Amino acid sequence: MTTLALALVLAQAVAPAAAPLPSDPIEADWRAIPDDELMVITLGTGKQVVIRLAAAYAPAHIGNVRALARARWWDGTSVYRVQENWVTQWGDESEKKPLPTGITDAPAAEFEIAAFAPAVRMARADGYSTASGITAEGWPVASDGKAAWLTHCYGMVGVARDALPSTGSGSELFTPIGQSARRLDRNYTVVGRIVEGMQYLSALPRSDAAMGMYATVAERVPIVSVRLASDLVPAERPHFQYRAADNARFAAAVRRREQAEAPTVPTGAAVCDVLPAVRRRP
Amino acid sequence: MTTLALALVLAQAVAPAAAPLPSDPIEADWRAIPDDELMVITLGTGKQVVIRLAAAYAPAHIGNVRALARARWWDGTSVYRVQENWVTQWGDESEKKPLPTGITDAPAAEFEIAAFAPAVRMARADGYSTASGITAEGWPVASDGKAAWLTHCYGMVGVARDALPSTGSGSELFTPIGQSARRLDRNYTVVGRIVEGMQYLSALPRSDAAMGMYATVAERVPIVSVRLASDLVPAERPHFQYRAADNARFAAAVRRREQAEAPTVPTGAAVCDVLPAVRRRP
Repeated sequence: MTTLALALVLAQAVAPAAAPLPSDPIEADWRAIPDDELMVITLGTGKQVVIRLAAAYAPAHIGNVRALARARWWDGTSVYRVQENWVTQWGDESEKKPLPTGITDAPAAEFEIAAFAPAVRMARADGYSTASGITAEGWPVASDGKAAWLTHCYGMVGVARDALPSTGSGSELFTPIGQSARRLDRNYTVVGRIVEGMQYLSALPRSDAAMGMYATVAERVPIVSVRLASDLVPAERPHFQYRAADNARFAAAVRRREQAEAPTVPTGAAVCDVLPAVRRRP
Repeated sequence: MTTLALALVLAQAVAPAAAPLPSDPIEADWRAIPDDELMVITLGTGKQVVIRLAAAYAPAHIGNVRALARARWWDGTSVYRVQENWVTQWGDESEKKPLPTGITDAPAAEFEIAAFAPAVRMARADGYSTASGITAEGWPVASDGKAAWLTHCYGMVGVARDALPSTGSGSELFTPIGQSARRLDRNYTVVGRIVEGMQYLSALPRSDAAMGMYATVAERVPIVSVRLASDLVPAERPHFQYRAADNARFAAAVRRREQAEAPTVPTGAAVCDVLPAVRRRP
């Protein structure tokens, strides 16, 4: 079975062994994501994308994002940009739709975060930072020994913006769909991570037009609605849990990924390889 | 224009300035890729994918790949696996199609290469290696100070295989379609890089079935033909050029990517971020 070995290398895809491994989570490692830190995008295709908001890190921009969802501002907008090996972007393609009253058009920069405080550190530096790791709550962070920031891994959600010093309002959002986009670190605001439905943004047809902007209205994917889970009626409200990183199990999982197991030759790992799992509440 | 700034960070997307930059290639930097190092996959969708073979590095596996193409072995096979944030894989899904006479089913391992000899080195180590860079011919390589290997960047082509010590015949190939798959480095054989048409493999619907294997025949994308460019009639033969890395222009381009330009805050780069451009011969 030629495909099997590829999976063996991918620890996340390995079925749990009969006896738990030191790197397996225990039930207490799964912690609830608050309803107002989950945002559900319903696409015209009928598919849904769920974003976990990085609420502790970018309060001004996430305040905007929540206010835009509550104002139903994104309803009727679209996914309008899909650039090969770069990003999928959504919001108001015309950039002319007025923002709701009270939305700050250009919040102060939140490209960096207050402190570098990972629960688990990667063993090695990488091309973009001298240290990186995963916070207790599961966010990927990096530092150069002075500043700290969230990293633009595949599936993270960033705020598109005009040229600096613009920081963007949060109305236009993007997610990296190829090679990680870490060269955007410290230059764009990270507001979350896609925790379900990423394939409905990553597998869209690429545009050959400039910057991957869809050239025709027909190519765009309509956005039917964007809602905070906390604003959905209970019957429609999804519940998610993240795997906490503040424990020996998760640390063992990171070390296992970095060191591999014979006969596989260990080649290390980078922070974007070890984002903790997120699941629907069982 | 909220989308503009995102492009400014992406040096490759910036239109050439009126005056050439020190990082711009000159005409002599574009060098021909030999016809027998190009392989053209024609999909049932009518789209084509072009692979540049890493002919200098994995002679046994690339010998197999060429022999399979010349035997038209892939004609009538399919793209049968598309796993979200992992790989697209193609060949004979049943793994029962007999290989042509003379194909070595299990060549000796070519997971590593003979020497670490980049023309341009990345400024920093990364999570997977102590040194990395781009060879004169444009291939991404890494080293731990002892061994050297080609890296599994987005769009590189690897050989799927059974459990070790299998090395795979080369009949089943894959390409990373998400976060780079560098944890496969030194454990799988890299045989090439997709230089055109990657979007026809990266934007395919993901499968929710185990390991991203398409669960039904209808989901698979038929492969009409796979041919070496050298075996195509002249009228159908594509011609490609790679940007050579053995010059000050390319070195400047790498440094520019690593260091960024004010007001952008520099965040460095990794080897998979700086793969040299490949183009059709003008």
